[in-house]
Amino acid sequence: MAGTERLGVALVGLGGAVATTAVAGMELLKRGLTDTKGLPLAGMHGLGLIDYGDLVFGGWDLYDDDLAKAARNHSVLSDTQLAAVSPILGKMKPWPASSNTDFCKNVVGSSTKRAKGLRDQVNGIRDDLEHFKKEQRLNRVVVINVASTERPVNLSLPQFATPEAFEAALDANDPNISPAMLYAYAAVSKGIPFANFTPSVAADVPALLELARRNGSPVAGKDGKTGQTLLKTVLAPALRDRALYVDGWYSTNILGNRDGEALNDPASKASKIDTKGAVLDSILGYKVQDHIVQIQYYRPRGDNKEAWDNIDVIGFCGQPMQLKINFLCKDSILAAPLVVELARTLDLAKRRGESGVIEELGCFFKAPMTRHGGTPEHSVPEQQRRLMGWLGKEGTQATGGTERVRG
Amino acid sequence: MAGTERLGVALVGLGGAVATTAVAGMELLKRGLTDTKGLPLAGMHGLGLIDYGDLVFGGWDLYDDDLAKAARNHSVLSDTQLAAVSPILGKMKPWPASSNTDFCKNVVGSSTKRAKGLRDQVNGIRDDLEHFKKEQRLNRVVVINVASTERPVNLSLPQFATPEAFEAALDANDPNISPAMLYAYAAVSKGIPFANFTPSVAADVPALLELARRNGSPVAGKDGKTGQTLLKTVLAPALRDRALYVDGWYSTNILGNRDGEALNDPASKASKIDTKGAVLDSILGYKVQDHIVQIQYYRPRGDNKEAWDNIDVIGFCGQPMQLKINFLCKDSILAAPLVVELARTLDLAKRRGESGVIEELGCFFKAPMTRHGGTPEHSVPEQQRRLMGWLGKEGTQATGGTERVRG
Amino acid sequence: MAGTERLGVALVGLGGAVATTAVAGMELLKRGLTDTKGLPLAGMHGLGLIDYGDLVFGGWDLYDDDLAKAARNHSVLSDTQLAAVSPILGKMKPWPASSNTDFCKNVVGSSTKRAKGLRDQVNGIRDDLEHFKKEQRLNRVVVINVASTERPVNLSLPQFATPEAFEAALDANDPNISPAMLYAYAAVSKGIPFANFTPSVAADVPALLELARRNGSPVAGKDGKTGQTLLKTVLAPALRDRALYVDGWYSTNILGNRDGEALNDPASKASKIDTKGAVLDSILGYKVQDHIVQIQYYRPRGDNKEAWDNIDVIGFCGQPMQLKINFLCKDSILAAPLVVELARTLDLAKRRGESGVIEELGCFFKAPMTRHGGTPEHSVPEQQRRLMGWLGKEGTQATGGTERVRG
Amino acid sequence: MAGTERLGVALVGLGGAVATTAVAGMELLKRGLTDTKGLPLAGMHGLGLIDYGDLVFGGWDLYDDDLAKAARNHSVLSDTQLAAVSPILGKMKPWPASSNTDFCKNVVGSSTKRAKGLRDQVNGIRDDLEHFKKEQRLNRVVVINVASTERPVNLSLPQFATPEAFEAALDANDPNISPAMLYAYAAVSKGIPFANFTPSVAADVPALLELARRNGSPVAGKDGKTGQTLLKTVLAPALRDRALYVDGWYSTNILGNRDGEALNDPASKASKIDTKGAVLDSILGYKVQDHIVQIQYYRPRGDNKEAWDNIDVIGFCGQPMQLKINFLCKDSILAAPLVVELARTLDLAKRRGESGVIEELGCFFKAPMTRHGGTPEHSVPEQQRRLMGWLGKEGTQATGGTERVRG
Repeated sequence: MAGTERLGVALVGLGGAVATTAVAGMELLKRGLTDTKGLPLAGMHGLGLIDYGDLVFGGWDLYDDDLAKAARNHSVLSDTQLAAVSPILGKMKPWPASSNTDFCKNVVGSSTKRAKGLRDQVNGIRDDLEHFKKEQRLNRVVVINVASTERPVNLSLPQFATPEAFEAALDANDPNISPAMLYAYAAVSKGIPFANFTPSVAADVPALLELARRNGSPVAGKDGKTGQTLLKTVLAPALRDRALYVDGWYSTNILGNRDGEALNDPASKASKIDTKGAVLDSILGYKVQDHIVQIQYYRPRGDNKEAWDNIDVIGFCGQPMQLKINFLCKDSILAAPLVVELARTLDLAKRRGESGVIEELGCFFKAPMTRHGGTPEHSVPEQQRRLMGWLGKEGTQATGGTERVRG
Repeated sequence: MAGTERLGVALVGLGGAVATTAVAGMELLKRGLTDTKGLPLAGMHGLGLIDYGDLVFGGWDLYDDDLAKAARNHSVLSDTQLAAVSPILGKMKPWPASSNTDFCKNVVGSSTKRAKGLRDQVNGIRDDLEHFKKEQRLNRVVVINVASTERPVNLSLPQFATPEAFEAALDANDPNISPAMLYAYAAVSKGIPFANFTPSVAADVPALLELARRNGSPVAGKDGKTGQTLLKTVLAPALRDRALYVDGWYSTNILGNRDGEALNDPASKASKIDTKGAVLDSILGYKVQDHIVQIQYYRPRGDNKEAWDNIDVIGFCGQPMQLKINFLCKDSILAAPLVVELARTLDLAKRRGESGVIEELGCFFKAPMTRHGGTPEHSVPEQQRRLMGWLGKEGTQATGGTERVRG
Repeated sequence: MAGTERLGVALVGLGGAVATTAVAGMELLKRGLTDTKGLPLAGMHGLGLIDYGDLVFGGWDLYDDDLAKAARNHSVLSDTQLAAVSPILGKMKPWPASSNTDFCKNVVGSSTKRAKGLRDQVNGIRDDLEHFKKEQRLNRVVVINVASTERPVNLSLPQFATPEAFEAALDANDPNISPAMLYAYAAVSKGIPFANFTPSVAADVPALLELARRNGSPVAGKDGKTGQTLLKTVLAPALRDRALYVDGWYSTNILGNRDGEALNDPASKASKIDTKGAVLDSILGYKVQDHIVQIQYYRPRGDNKEAWDNIDVIGFCGQPMQLKINFLCKDSILAAPLVVELARTLDLAKRRGESGVIEELGCFFKAPMTRHGGTPEHSVPEQQRRLMGWLGKEGTQATGGTERVRG
Repeated sequence: MAGTERLGVALVGLGGAVATTAVAGMELLKRGLTDTKGLPLAGMHGLGLIDYGDLVFGGWDLYDDDLAKAARNHSVLSDTQLAAVSPILGKMKPWPASSNTDFCKNVVGSSTKRAKGLRDQVNGIRDDLEHFKKEQRLNRVVVINVASTERPVNLSLPQFATPEAFEAALDANDPNISPAMLYAYAAVSKGIPFANFTPSVAADVPALLELARRNGSPVAGKDGKTGQTLLKTVLAPALRDRALYVDGWYSTNILGNRDGEALNDPASKASKIDTKGAVLDSILGYKVQDHIVQIQYYRPRGDNKEAWDNIDVIGFCGQPMQLKINFLCKDSILAAPLVVELARTLDLAKRRGESGVIEELGCFFKAPMTRHGGTPEHSVPEQQRRLMGWLGKEGTQATGGTERVRG
């Protein structure tokens, strides 16, 4: 079901597990080797979303392995699936990336942009996008950050306050500007949609948000909501509605992929845990006294991810009860389809003329950005209702069916 | 916070764990010895719901223990809590009940109505309600069935088709008429609100539904949605919305109370499992090939109830994942507040002039009754939205707070 | 590490998941494509056990698929592993089997022996063994039953009492003689070692045990101890030694392979649950009041097997505690190496001149056979100690190391 | 079943949850209000162990609450149980304790010994023991440390090498001498049995071990093996014996008592995790690459303790499997009876004339001390076998029964 248009999806971190899974999955889908299971907006026809078959992938990475090799290393897909898409993925190589070990210590690849300063880096990113568009005969492009988590950044610095201040800081090679910001800047300053699927600070910078609005760039983020936090924000509204008081929530995660290794850097871990922690109180309407979130690198898990949650609730007559949840999931399998749907929805937003933060895409994120800095909605059912409304499917629900797509 | 009105709540199965917990809990609340945790509609002021402090309990049971003794046997509340309400509960004794071991084998108490036939039984039930109202100076009464589960009944028998046929069958002592139907008939034929918190067939009989509409009796049911099914219908909408295909769902339950013993009768168990099974397919929009529900009597669990669920889902690229849920809950602690809220909402419906099935109360039930026999909504978020709409709280959410109530 | 001798391992149920995994695993080991992980007696040199590389497999099955095809259907090993051994396994075909749907309803293959009666069947089995030995230039043979579970049989029938009575019954085509007994008889009457890895009644028949003793045939059984029961008999001795009283033990199993389907026949299931139930009381020294074991066929699990156990224990001052165990295991991966070790140890027993039940092999079984009908030892640590003693490794422990074996 | 002798049990940390549970439990037992469930050596008659009814408790604590108040605060026993023993426990007050916040930061009570230096502290401890013996007409005394965990100490310091060096350091008020060492010194230098139930360094000091041998003091330690580590050392031998390779073991613990708070001091936590970590490799015979142990203070759990373990094992043909264990246990309920049995066995050792480390008591400890600094045995079945041998019960097993004891 490919149409006449082609949308370029430029991924920051193209060689990573999430990106390679997205690329491989779309190729399997085009070939009829998989169906649309796991793709939340499959089966939603007539809403203007571009077909899965019309997505064209490219992007940057610090590791220059071709995508077939990278995908094999990540071991997310089966040998049979990888074999089927290797001829295509083997021809795809990430473009050299912008990097700064000050922001992300444990991920050090060698394929970096040769650029004299930050402005030069930005220009390099823009050139990559121009070249991508031309070579692939693309109608439009979106940029999505799926790279490893960077350390937290202080957003209230004066150089982040206005587009002008930011540009001056850029020219002065300000050490507070992270690689993720460079990609965001390169996109939003040219009206290109940008999504931040990581916990890093990127388009959250006030200066960049203002630029996005000025230049007609739809923006969404941040930190993809996949495993444990997804379940948390599914369950919490129900506990609230039944008046079951959450006395404590202990969450532990084990994961063994490159993301997990990055989290061994305490600063990156802080970013991650931070975006995980806020959601509960917001949904429940009170502060959960003992909400503990642990993330642990654990090699044997590989790209699989496992969450164990213990929830202590207090019910009628003050009686305690316990709920335990063990989610044996696959990080990239949950994340990749969200990246695909973000590309399609941001592209729709762009064509509709929307710009700035698209709040209705909040269901995809652990820490949803809001238009005017308000408190985000974290409840999954409510987020879903808003997404359906934005898509013009008010009152209806996802079909639950699957469709086969051929390129 | 007691007002000037008094609502009588007549419970079928007053000596059971759910009923005694509801009664004791309301007494603790009136005395300020517990708060409103676990009561879903606490904090919803100004909607016309009667205050918790204005509820007066009575009801029938096959066991004639006073409620203090019964509550102690059920071991749901703490010794301290029981001691605080024993003076009151010790004075409350269930009225003799209607019984028929053909419908519920494993629960055999001796406190039964002396009545020559079914019509006589009905008259006895009505007399009990009249006497209750008078003695307790009640403004209104509701009847709620929380007795043990009866075996399934064929609803398409001709004697169930019309009020006239049913009344004829009643006079002929038709063996297909179960005790639960007698209570339902006694209520709806007099315009008294009736809720069926059990899986038994009661007001589902077409003849009784017609009577309820004719006589202005609001009706709700059936089978209280508390532990495992509550979680199931919270999770399934999210799995659907993320397009995570449910390949199998294995649910096992262990419980050790009188309800559990009743379930050792295979016929009663069939009723129960039946109402548990339908919910998934309805929410997901496809038939789950392997949905298995087991309920097992297990003495050591006592009134506590434990559910273990294994959910196999298939995501992007056909990759399988697993979710396991272990809910260590307390059956009566989850059920009792729903009984209380049903009394309050049915009473509100009655005062508003509504009659027949009140579909908007579907969130309280595993097998929600529908107005015209349509497919019920099982998704908890959607049920909650409808309840809030019916209460006039459209767009708002439960507060999550707790209030203290004094009688 | 192949020596100069060759041991034939004739498996009843050669096309099943356990057997094909054993055969494929040994081929992988010979080729250096896997190591000895999972093989309990690897690394025990100098004790007289035949080398893994000297085992030669053959056997019977009701399905005549070659082993490459059968192994692929069972999906136990990876595609890569299957590809590596397919050339060999593709040349191996099970011999037609003895069958009787009265004993095992849900497994109906078409590759059955053409024989006029039971005696003829036995002769056919013997001919198969003779032919196997000759063709493969084998020094010795052992027979191991890994077929699907048959329904229970009354062992106290007079025709089972003595070898003479059994032989008369055989000639009379007695309907109480099951296929498993035919294989056992064919083996023990010729002094061939026989192990029963299934819960079926086979060499348990007193007549057959007597024959085994007379003819110098070592015997072991029954019902391989792999997943849940293994863990149960590991934990129970520790609970006993800490005086933690087991108030209840709820065990549920889900499995989706051919064995699981066989268990959908209630009679076969009864055999299985029976051998699972006895172990606890025996170890603990008192009757566990609530010990419940459920086995459920659940398609999505495939050859994988999952057990969930809830154990209620009472400790000091009567305080209750709970232990929950969730074992995500692979039935054939746990069972196949035990079959291999049984072949090696029974062969050792034969060469040592031992006959009748070899009690010291009890650690491999859920329902260990005993020499004189005494109570079996179920405690894993004690069983292990006895096995090590029998092997001449008193006081030492398994090495935990792995060795690589080449054919 | 009280005899004519009386054994004093002086506990360091008498006001803690473990100690008060031990004291209350023994009182309940004497009164026939509980049985011997949870006491591992109950039912072992004729071995010379002193009767439970002949134990007399005393000890030190930094908090001077009487034991009735302390036990109530710990909420380990039921209200009914506490009420029954309150008259006795209310009369028991801990003696002022030795303290040093440098060794244990988060536990700061005010009931400390007024002593000018370390030597003075030791004298005070000895005076307490003398007074205890006299006042209670005791035949003998044992000292057991159940206080909060102290930070690690470097045992190879010269002042710890010989009794003489230690005594000199004592007189010089050496800051490396911790309070736990003072208690150990006071006991072993007088030939009094000493057990260290905590992970703190106490009698491990070479100087103190030498003193114990010289003075005829039996010693045992350290760190009581109760919940997660108990299970770990029960399971690991079985995994080893089945050659299931442990690829990773992730252990997380949540607990909410005073011990847990002490663990919020990273130094104390290090001690604890250290003694937990070593056991696996020792049993398995190889280094587990990913063995992670987390301990987390989590208020809602109170004195209850919960462990969740995920074990990744690799079996035959390199196939991975997973085992998950969730232990909802009660720390003090598991620990208190071990303290009681340690008192009885150390007393037996003393009467037998044994001194120095009693290795056969290793089953009670996470980090068993060894006579000559050898590698300890961690396997529970092997430890149990050794204990039974030492007690003269070779070849027999714990009875599993319970006995009632009256004072």
